[in-house]
Amino acid sequence: MALVLLPLAQGFEEVEAVSLIDVLRRGGVEVRIAHMDGDTDTDMVLGANGITIQADTSIANVMSEEFDMILLPGGWEGTYTLADNETVQRLLKEFKQKEKVIGSICAAAYALKKADVLGTEYTCYPAAADEIDHPGYREDKAVVTDGNIMTSRGPGTALCFGLEIVKRLVGVESYTAVKEGMLLDFCE
Amino acid sequence: MALVLLPLAQGFEEVEAVSLIDVLRRGGVEVRIAHMDGDTDTDMVLGANGITIQADTSIANVMSEEFDMILLPGGWEGTYTLADNETVQRLLKEFKQKEKVIGSICAAAYALKKADVLGTEYTCYPAAADEIDHPGYREDKAVVTDGNIMTSRGPGTALCFGLEIVKRLVGVESYTAVKEGMLLDFCE
Repeated sequence: MALVLLPLAQGFEEVEAVSLIDVLRRGGVEVRIAHMDGDTDTDMVLGANGITIQADTSIANVMSEEFDMILLPGGWEGTYTLADNETVQRLLKEFKQKEKVIGSICAAAYALKKADVLGTEYTCYPAAADEIDHPGYREDKAVVTDGNIMTSRGPGTALCFGLEIVKRLVGVESYTAVKEGMLLDFCE
Repeated sequence: MALVLLPLAQGFEEVEAVSLIDVLRRGGVEVRIAHMDGDTDTDMVLGANGITIQADTSIANVMSEEFDMILLPGGWEGTYTLADNETVQRLLKEFKQKEKVIGSICAAAYALKKADVLGTEYTCYPAAADEIDHPGYREDKAVVTDGNIMTSRGPGTALCFGLEIVKRLVGVESYTAVKEGMLLDFCE
């Protein structure tokens, strides 16, 4: 079973994180939610809209060998933490070096840029493109796949992004089953 | 500020609950998440896909007078609990009697049916319509508004359902701002 690491920092965008976790798990992908090291006293992570979600482990316990993909949800506060966190930045570089899949949605492409793992084509939340300041921004696509780098735009594209990840990590049959089961006919 | 009660029972569908809470809060609605009475030792509620969310209060502390709307997320296990829970069933009847707004998505229309608050027209998760067994099922609409009863179909319609609730409780300007900010151009 494919295994995805989803780092969750305070201020994450809740629809993005939960849509990705839900779609992936329905599609047969194991998702491990990791809170930031330093938050040693709690596994609870507060989102940008006041929703608190429980993490499965600390990012400090993560070994990249175990995982097939690292996937970052957006939200600016969470994104800045993911961009500043040494463990997350080291993991992003390791995932790239080991040719594993790397994904981000919304502002979180900023943390990929910081780790120097963005490729030649990507997308992100429209208002975040200036701050990410990287060539190859595509404003015309909900999901951009550029080799091992998969990116998406924001809350409204999170479910469809999850589906594309399921298609890649599991297969088209699982993609179709989850798409029908969750009523995602608006996803291309 | 409009105040919405969102009862959360174990086995709730996470995309539905989180999409509704996130959209409503962005739209300027206060949302209070209530866990079931009986779960006295914890405010943590486990969803159908293994995501655990923290509630704000116990349903035992809720007084209907405070609220403008009660809104039930789906997921079959959670729905059966909402349908069997005496406090939730009493609150649904009180909200109807006081002409407050009542909403459900996915299977949760079953809990509305049990409380005898469904009207002449509603929608729900397609596969749930037989078990809900109530006349007026509309399979052609993502959101059905029938007086004070608002219903929607499933995970893929939750964001658009949230927008419709924002339009009703706050207004069209807020609806438009949230729709644009969350990239929800696929919502009608």
